[in-house]
Amino acid sequence: MKLTPPYAVFLGDADDNLGLKMANSIATWRPELCVGEVALPECSVTTGLPQVSIAAAAQQGAKSFVLGFNNAGGHIDNKYTAQIKVAIQHGLHIINGLHDKLTDIPELVALAQLHQVDLIDIRHPTTRFKTANGQKRTGKRLLTVGTDCSVGKMYTTLAIHQAMSEQGYNATFRATGQCGILVAGEGVAVDCVVADFISGAIEALTPANEPDHWDIIEGQGSLFQPAFAGVTIGLIHGAQPDALVICHTLRREFMRGMPNYRLPSIQQTIETNLLHARLTNPACKVIGISVNTSAVDEQTAKETCLQISQETGLPCSDPIRHGVAPLLHLL
Amino acid sequence: MKLTPPYAVFLGDADDNLGLKMANSIATWRPELCVGEVALPECSVTTGLPQVSIAAAAQQGAKSFVLGFNNAGGHIDNKYTAQIKVAIQHGLHIINGLHDKLTDIPELVALAQLHQVDLIDIRHPTTRFKTANGQKRTGKRLLTVGTDCSVGKMYTTLAIHQAMSEQGYNATFRATGQCGILVAGEGVAVDCVVADFISGAIEALTPANEPDHWDIIEGQGSLFQPAFAGVTIGLIHGAQPDALVICHTLRREFMRGMPNYRLPSIQQTIETNLLHARLTNPACKVIGISVNTSAVDEQTAKETCLQISQETGLPCSDPIRHGVAPLLHLL
Repeated sequence: MKLTPPYAVFLGDADDNLGLKMANSIATWRPELCVGEVALPECSVTTGLPQVSIAAAAQQGAKSFVLGFNNAGGHIDNKYTAQIKVAIQHGLHIINGLHDKLTDIPELVALAQLHQVDLIDIRHPTTRFKTANGQKRTGKRLLTVGTDCSVGKMYTTLAIHQAMSEQGYNATFRATGQCGILVAGEGVAVDCVVADFISGAIEALTPANEPDHWDIIEGQGSLFQPAFAGVTIGLIHGAQPDALVICHTLRREFMRGMPNYRLPSIQQTIETNLLHARLTNPACKVIGISVNTSAVDEQTAKETCLQISQETGLPCSDPIRHGVAPLLHLL
Repeated sequence: MKLTPPYAVFLGDADDNLGLKMANSIATWRPELCVGEVALPECSVTTGLPQVSIAAAAQQGAKSFVLGFNNAGGHIDNKYTAQIKVAIQHGLHIINGLHDKLTDIPELVALAQLHQVDLIDIRHPTTRFKTANGQKRTGKRLLTVGTDCSVGKMYTTLAIHQAMSEQGYNATFRATGQCGILVAGEGVAVDCVVADFISGAIEALTPANEPDHWDIIEGQGSLFQPAFAGVTIGLIHGAQPDALVICHTLRREFMRGMPNYRLPSIQQTIETNLLHARLTNPACKVIGISVNTSAVDEQTAKETCLQISQETGLPCSDPIRHGVAPLLHLL
């Protein structure tokens, strides 16, 4: 799976920022790869990128048109296909992170062939993976895990990768979801891999490397998520992590989309993740806690991080408010 | 997915019983559905079913030709397709539990259309599943889990279902692998489901039911298996089990295919499975231990089961040597 920047980022008719995770990821982490954003008239939000038409984006050198929104159900509706067709006619590849596949829409397939551009469904792996072999690999690996889904694992992972690179570490960000893949230009959407191959896909994504090289691996789901824990444990086993960073968000009482399931405590999250990580790497340790404190004021954020740090004996930081440098002290 | 008996069971060129798991499963558990076995001249093993030609099987009323062997890699070689073609020409549906798909072989697809028979790849789900919702369902559920893969989970599950049915329980066997699906005539090969939908597929397989109804669910993999734990935890969460039966086999020091991983203790297996099962069913309990003692003599088998029972405080039995009745005492 090879992505070709620069990108024109399509926002569709998005009306809140939650629906713009793909667009915001690339605009935040790789703005230099973005020509601008393209929006339908109904769209009421922005990534902050310049607003452009598809024609103008193509003229300014854009090579790919990124579907940067995520609607309920992940469907590619007719109102979007009209714009996708215009982009194809301007010679742009199409990058799609929705559940629906571009390659399942015959008229788009035909038009893409005519204009010799690629339709890239980045959630859907094109590789045939092997089952995991569990053998220890050279090189080091850091993995983010969480109390729940959507607690800041991708942001934390990218911020840690950036900080380690700046500090001179030999480190590679490894993407495991569609937004991370868009930022990295490659990766595996592990939630879309066939169950037998979850760990094997992660072994392939993070192969043996130089002894001082770090794979900084984006986590997915949570061991405490009744729908997605299979993805999480397979990712942990395949990653053989040397270091775990626990991600958490304040003021969330129940698991996302699961009103009958309370969030685990941070201590439970540490213990259960270590239990499973030590199966494939007995030396694994938790090096810190990353907390999304956006629900509280600055003073409360600082006090909360201090309290978590005292309770766990580990560094604790909000990567947006306070940066991730504290999370690297125990590396 | 609908299977049509009676079956002609094809053994291919199998030369040991390990490669005949599909064939032996149906011959052991549903012999009344089998017309006989069909073997290539090189085949050196038997299920004990009468040996028949494809023509004779069709004449005796067989409706489906079952690929009952499993070779390394799960490939459908030319030596098998010749026989499959003969079966199609005799009007038999083809049932395949190998990794390779019949429907990926154009000449078989064309021939099947001509003769109006079905090519059924039972490992590959045809349903589009939903993600799990984690909501408590009515009815009761029993799930087998194991110290490793291939420790007798399917056999134990089928034996428990049979014993409970004989004792008057309102119980349904729920298959989660290709052999179980062949025996039950339906089910989901959970290791072939896309990772995001593992738990959701099991919720769909074991839906809300009468309060006194038991789903007796075939387990897969092991939480301690570095390649397949994702399948196992997703199955546990989706099943919301009221009762777990731990399956184990004697004299296996290392995890199957993983020479660097030792088998967990039975106590570890109990604790870790309960930890995760109680996420979706806080009332879950372990009711017994099922041990494959075939590696030791009868006296040692009895002593070992007694010892495990004393150590765990739970009933322990070899389902083949001693039956599963003891495992139902705590139900």
